[in-house]
Amino acid sequence: MFFTSDNAGPAHPSVMQALMDANTGYASGYGSDDGMTRVRAMIQEIFEAPEAAVHLVATGTAANALTLATLSNPWDTIFCSPMAHIHEDECNAPEFYTGGTKLTLVPATDAKMTPDALRASILGEETRGVHGPQRGPVSITQATEKGTVYSVAELQALTAVAHEFGLKTHLDGARFTNALVSLGCSPAEMTWKAGIDAVSFGGTKNGLLGVEACIFFDPAASWEFELRRKRGAHLFSKHRYLSAQMEAYLTDDLWLTLAAKANAACARLITGLKTAKDVEIQYQSQSNLVFFDAPRGLHQRMLAAGAHYYVTSGDPDSGPADEVLTGRLVCDWSCDHAAIDQFITLLTQ
Amino acid sequence: MFFTSDNAGPAHPSVMQALMDANTGYASGYGSDDGMTRVRAMIQEIFEAPEAAVHLVATGTAANALTLATLSNPWDTIFCSPMAHIHEDECNAPEFYTGGTKLTLVPATDAKMTPDALRASILGEETRGVHGPQRGPVSITQATEKGTVYSVAELQALTAVAHEFGLKTHLDGARFTNALVSLGCSPAEMTWKAGIDAVSFGGTKNGLLGVEACIFFDPAASWEFELRRKRGAHLFSKHRYLSAQMEAYLTDDLWLTLAAKANAACARLITGLKTAKDVEIQYQSQSNLVFFDAPRGLHQRMLAAGAHYYVTSGDPDSGPADEVLTGRLVCDWSCDHAAIDQFITLLTQ
Amino acid sequence: MFFTSDNAGPAHPSVMQALMDANTGYASGYGSDDGMTRVRAMIQEIFEAPEAAVHLVATGTAANALTLATLSNPWDTIFCSPMAHIHEDECNAPEFYTGGTKLTLVPATDAKMTPDALRASILGEETRGVHGPQRGPVSITQATEKGTVYSVAELQALTAVAHEFGLKTHLDGARFTNALVSLGCSPAEMTWKAGIDAVSFGGTKNGLLGVEACIFFDPAASWEFELRRKRGAHLFSKHRYLSAQMEAYLTDDLWLTLAAKANAACARLITGLKTAKDVEIQYQSQSNLVFFDAPRGLHQRMLAAGAHYYVTSGDPDSGPADEVLTGRLVCDWSCDHAAIDQFITLLTQ
Amino acid sequence: MFFTSDNAGPAHPSVMQALMDANTGYASGYGSDDGMTRVRAMIQEIFEAPEAAVHLVATGTAANALTLATLSNPWDTIFCSPMAHIHEDECNAPEFYTGGTKLTLVPATDAKMTPDALRASILGEETRGVHGPQRGPVSITQATEKGTVYSVAELQALTAVAHEFGLKTHLDGARFTNALVSLGCSPAEMTWKAGIDAVSFGGTKNGLLGVEACIFFDPAASWEFELRRKRGAHLFSKHRYLSAQMEAYLTDDLWLTLAAKANAACARLITGLKTAKDVEIQYQSQSNLVFFDAPRGLHQRMLAAGAHYYVTSGDPDSGPADEVLTGRLVCDWSCDHAAIDQFITLLTQ
Repeated sequence: MFFTSDNAGPAHPSVMQALMDANTGYASGYGSDDGMTRVRAMIQEIFEAPEAAVHLVATGTAANALTLATLSNPWDTIFCSPMAHIHEDECNAPEFYTGGTKLTLVPATDAKMTPDALRASILGEETRGVHGPQRGPVSITQATEKGTVYSVAELQALTAVAHEFGLKTHLDGARFTNALVSLGCSPAEMTWKAGIDAVSFGGTKNGLLGVEACIFFDPAASWEFELRRKRGAHLFSKHRYLSAQMEAYLTDDLWLTLAAKANAACARLITGLKTAKDVEIQYQSQSNLVFFDAPRGLHQRMLAAGAHYYVTSGDPDSGPADEVLTGRLVCDWSCDHAAIDQFITLLTQ
Repeated sequence: MFFTSDNAGPAHPSVMQALMDANTGYASGYGSDDGMTRVRAMIQEIFEAPEAAVHLVATGTAANALTLATLSNPWDTIFCSPMAHIHEDECNAPEFYTGGTKLTLVPATDAKMTPDALRASILGEETRGVHGPQRGPVSITQATEKGTVYSVAELQALTAVAHEFGLKTHLDGARFTNALVSLGCSPAEMTWKAGIDAVSFGGTKNGLLGVEACIFFDPAASWEFELRRKRGAHLFSKHRYLSAQMEAYLTDDLWLTLAAKANAACARLITGLKTAKDVEIQYQSQSNLVFFDAPRGLHQRMLAAGAHYYVTSGDPDSGPADEVLTGRLVCDWSCDHAAIDQFITLLTQ
Repeated sequence: MFFTSDNAGPAHPSVMQALMDANTGYASGYGSDDGMTRVRAMIQEIFEAPEAAVHLVATGTAANALTLATLSNPWDTIFCSPMAHIHEDECNAPEFYTGGTKLTLVPATDAKMTPDALRASILGEETRGVHGPQRGPVSITQATEKGTVYSVAELQALTAVAHEFGLKTHLDGARFTNALVSLGCSPAEMTWKAGIDAVSFGGTKNGLLGVEACIFFDPAASWEFELRRKRGAHLFSKHRYLSAQMEAYLTDDLWLTLAAKANAACARLITGLKTAKDVEIQYQSQSNLVFFDAPRGLHQRMLAAGAHYYVTSGDPDSGPADEVLTGRLVCDWSCDHAAIDQFITLLTQ
Repeated sequence: MFFTSDNAGPAHPSVMQALMDANTGYASGYGSDDGMTRVRAMIQEIFEAPEAAVHLVATGTAANALTLATLSNPWDTIFCSPMAHIHEDECNAPEFYTGGTKLTLVPATDAKMTPDALRASILGEETRGVHGPQRGPVSITQATEKGTVYSVAELQALTAVAHEFGLKTHLDGARFTNALVSLGCSPAEMTWKAGIDAVSFGGTKNGLLGVEACIFFDPAASWEFELRRKRGAHLFSKHRYLSAQMEAYLTDDLWLTLAAKANAACARLITGLKTAKDVEIQYQSQSNLVFFDAPRGLHQRMLAAGAHYYVTSGDPDSGPADEVLTGRLVCDWSCDHAAIDQFITLLTQ
C-alpha cells in the first residue's frame, strides 16, 4: 500500500535493460552520443516537430528552471497557478536560474488556471512602466499538481491569452504522459498545436531513473539553453545513460503504457474512495494522483494498518479524531491492484 | 585506442549490478533512502570523519560549484590555478552558484600551485577595503587537470597558507582516487589531516555513471548545502540510484581497484611515450592522464590510424607537418593494455 | 494643484544650503567623511541606539533591497503586504539583491498586515523541508503605501509573530517620519522597542534630494551591508553630499517639521474630500497621501482644470463618465494650502 | 597638498548653482524631467549621435556595471586590463550585475591593452564549445587607471580586433574628459568613430557631485538598460538633480575647462617630479594622475609635512627607509598650483 509518490517506485525493467545495453565500449560525452541523436529524432517525430530543439536533464526542477530561464528576462514575472510545482516545490530554483524573476500566482479552479483569471493577472502586471516587473512567460502544469488535466481546448484558451500579450508559454509536463493518455490526444495537439512554446517532458515520474526532455518548438533557443544547462552544471559527461533511458521510454510505446497503468490504478482508487464513508474526494483527478478528505481518526487507522501516503494538511498524529485532513494518493506504473483493493477494503471496513 | 576522456568508457559492471539491485520496490526519495544512510556511514568511516556531512550530486561541476558556493560569499574571490576545471571548463558555473565571485588565478608549476604563489596571490587581494573583492576559499585540484599529483606535504603547505589567512580550502577531487592510489596515503591524510575543509569526491570519471560526493568535514555547512543543492535543481527524487552507484563504488575497494587500473594503464602509456622519437611529455603525470608534444604530422598519422584523443593546442588537420602540438591521453579503468601497446607501436614505428 | 508624488516637489532650502556648505575643500570619500561621523551619532542618539550601524544610500529601493538582502538567504521568502513597494514598484530589485528570494504576500486590511494573517502566511511556508522556500524576514511599510499607519501596538504584535518564528523584521520607512509624527511616539518606540531589527529611514520623500539611511540595531550586519552596498554600486565616492543632506534633515527637527507640514496638508485635503459629493475616501490615511474614489467624469473635470494626480485604476480619459475610478493625492512639505483649497473648491462646485 | 583622489575635491560652483536653480516647483521624476530632455539632446549633439540612448546614474561603478550587463550574457567573459577599475575596485559589481560573467585580464603595457594581447586573449577563450565561458564585450578605460591615454588610433586598433570577433566594446570613461582634452579630438572621434559601442561618460571625478551618463550608440539597448537600472535601484525619483548637474557640466564647455585644469595641474606635478632626486615616474601619464616611485623615507617625509596621497605599494609607515614604494598623485579641477609648487619644493629640498 505505497501511495507516497510516483518517484518512490522502481524504474521499468526495459529501462534498466537499456542502461545495461548502453554500457558498452566508448561513447562521446556531453550530449553528442549516438543515443541522443536517436532520441532527438524520436521526439521530433512523436511531437511532429522536425525542427524542435531537444535536450535532456536529470531532474524535473532542472527542466523547469532552465526552460523558464531561457524564456524569461530577470525583470519579468512568470504566471502560474498557486499550486504550481515551480512555486511550491523548487526552493526558488526558478528565481535562481532566471536571475530574480517573480512568480505571479493566477487563481486556479480545480488546480487549473482559467483564461479569465490569467488575463486579469496579466493585466494586473506591467502597469507601472519600468517600476514594476514586466510580463514574462506563462507556465502551465499538465497534468496539474492535483491530478486534474487541462483539456486541449482549455490549453488553447490559455495560450491564446498569453499570445495576445506576446507572452511565451511553458508546459510543465512532469506528468505529461499521464495527461496525454487521459486526453487521448496527440503530443502535438497537447503542445504546439495548442500554442505551447516549450515543454518539460517528464520521464522520471513515469518509470525512468531520472530523465526529462526540454523541448523548444522554436529551435532558436537551443544554444542559449545549452549554455544555461552547462552553467547550471546539468550537462552530463556520460550523457549516454540519459539518452538510453529516454530511448527505452519512447520505444514500443512504453511511455504510454506506463502512464496508462498509473492512471488506471488511480481510477481504481478513486472508484473505491467514492464508496467510503466519511471520505470526500478533492479535485476532479484525471491522472495518477488523487486527494481526499477524511477524519484524522480514519487517516490514523489507515497509516497504522500499513498504508503509506502523505497527509498534506495538518498532523495526522495529534489532534481531534474527527478533524478533517487531506490525504494524497499517488500511483505509478508499478502500482499493485491488490494493494489498491487492500487499501479500499481497509478504508471501507 | 580510445584515450579521449575518462568519461567516455563504460561504467563498471558491479555498478550496473548495484543499480539493478536497487531497482526493487519502493524507496524514500530525495536523499532519505536507506542506501544513502549506508553511503554516508561508509564515507565517514573511509575518511575517518564520523561527523562529516556527505551529500551526492550527479556531475562534477555541480559538486564543485555547490561546495564552493557554500564556502564563499558573493563578494569573494576564489583562489585556484589557471588550469583549474572550475575556471576553464564550467562555463561560469562557480560564478553563477556563488552569486558572482571572482576567481584569482594563482600561477602554477606543473599545474600545481605553490605555497609562495598562493601567498602572493592572497596578499594581492583584499588590499582595498570594501572596494575590491574579499579573500575567499582556496580550491585545489587533486589529481590536477594535467595529471600531476600534490604530495601530502604539498597539500599541507598550501592549506597552511590558506588557514594563515583564515580561508577555507576545497579539494576538487574529480580524480581523487587516482591521486590517492598514486600517493598511497589514506583519504584522511589527503584531506582533513592535510587541512582540507571540503571535498568534491568524484566517481564519474572512475567507473560510475554519474555520481560525486560532496563532503564537509565541518557538518555545520550541511543544511546550507542541502538548500543550495535543491535550489540548484540537483536533488534527485529517485536518489537511490545515486546511492547505489556510490555504495558499489566503495564496496570491496572497487574505487581503489579501478583507479589503480587507470593509473597503471597511463603509466604504461608514459613508458611507451618515452621511447618515441619526436615526442616530449609535458607535466610529471602521476595519475591517469598524460600530455605529450609531437609534430602535427605524427598526430595526423596517429589519428588516421584510429587513435582517439584530443589535440589541445592548435588544429591537427591543417598547418605545417613539423609544428609541435600537444595531445592529451586519458585512461580510465577499462583501458585496454592491448590498445596501449598498439598505440605505442604505431607511435614508434 | 500638484499632488502626483512626494518626490515631485523641491528639496528644502536648508538642505540645499547644507549642500553648499559642504562643498568646500577636500573631504574623505566613500563614507569616511566627517559629516558621516556626525550623521551616525545623530541617528544613534535620535533612535536611542548607540550601537546601531548606520549607512546612507541615495534611493529608497536601494535602502530596501540592500537591507533585505543583508537579512535574507537566497532560498528564503520575504513576508510583506500585497501593496508593498518592494513587491509592486521595485522591478524585482529585492529578488535581484537577495539572489532570488520570493515574496510571500500577506493579506492586508487597510494596507496593513494583521498578526493573524502574518502568522497564517508564515505557517503556510517552510512546510516542505528542503523543497519549498524557507521563511525569511518580515518587511513592514510604515507609513503604508496607502497612507495608513500602524500603531506601535500593531507593530509590536507583528514583530512578536515574526520573532516567535525566529524571523528578522524590516521597516520600510520611505515615509517613516510621516508615520512618526502621526503617532507622536519616539523613533525608538516605533522601531527597536517595537521589535524592528532594521530600518530604511527615508529622507527623499520628505525634503531631501535623495538620501536614505539604512539602520541595523544589531551592528553585526554592518560589514556585510557595506560589501553589499559597494557591490551594488551604491557607495558614493563624494559621500559628503549624502551626509550633508541627512545632517541638515536631522538638525533643528527639520525632518519632523517637514513631515508634519505634509501630514497637515493631507489632512486638509481629506477634510475637503469628505465634503464632496460622489467622492469616497479609501483607506484610513493618517499620513501624507490619500486615495479617493470618484466617477470618471469628476476626475476628467479636475484634471482638465489643472489638478495633477494619478488615477490608479483604469484610464481617466476613456470610458463611461459614471464609472468609479480611484485617484491618489500626495502632499509633500511644500504643498500649498491655497492649492488644496482650490482643489477642494473645484471638486465640490 | 591634497592629491588623494579626484573625488576628494569640491564640486564646481556652477554645478552647485544649477542644483539651486533646479530646486524650484514641481518636476516629473524618474528621468522624465525637462532637464533630462535637454541633457539627452546635448549629449547627442556633442557626440554627433542623434540616435544615441542616454541615461544617468550617480556612481561610476553603476555606470560600468549596468552598461556591461546590458552588453553581456551571464556565461560570457569580459576582456579588460589587469588594472581595470571594473576588476580591481568594484567589489564584484560587474559579476553581480551581469549574473556571473568572468573578467579575462588582457596583459597591458603602460596600463593599455595592445591589439595583439587582446587578440591573443580572445583567441584563448571560447575554445571549448559549451564548456568554457563565451567571448563577451571588451572594456577599455580611457584615461586609464594609471593616467595613460589611448590614442584614437590605438582605440581603433583595439575595437577592430573586438569587432573582428563580433564583440561589443565599452569605454569606461570615468576620466573621459581628461583623455579627450589630452588628445584634442572630438567625443565622436574618441568613441563611435573609433568603434566604441557604449560609454560610461564620467562627471563625478571632474567637478560634479555624482553623475555619470551611460551612452549607447545603438539605441536598441535603451529599454533593457532602463529595466536594469531600475532593478539595480539606480533610478532616481528626484532625477532633476542628476540632470541639473550634467546640464551645467555640458554648458559653456565647463567639462572641458575643468578637465584641462586638472590635466594642467598634473603636468605641473610631473614636471616637478622629474627634477626630484630618487624619484621615478611610472607610466606615461597624459591626464590628471601620476604614479611615482620613491624611497619609503621620502614618502614619510612628504606625508609628515602634510602632503596627502596614497602609497599604493607597501606600508609607508614601517620598513626600510630606502625601500622603494609607489605613490599616486591625483589632481582635480580645483587643484591649487601653489600646493603643487609647495609639494615639489618639499620633494626636492
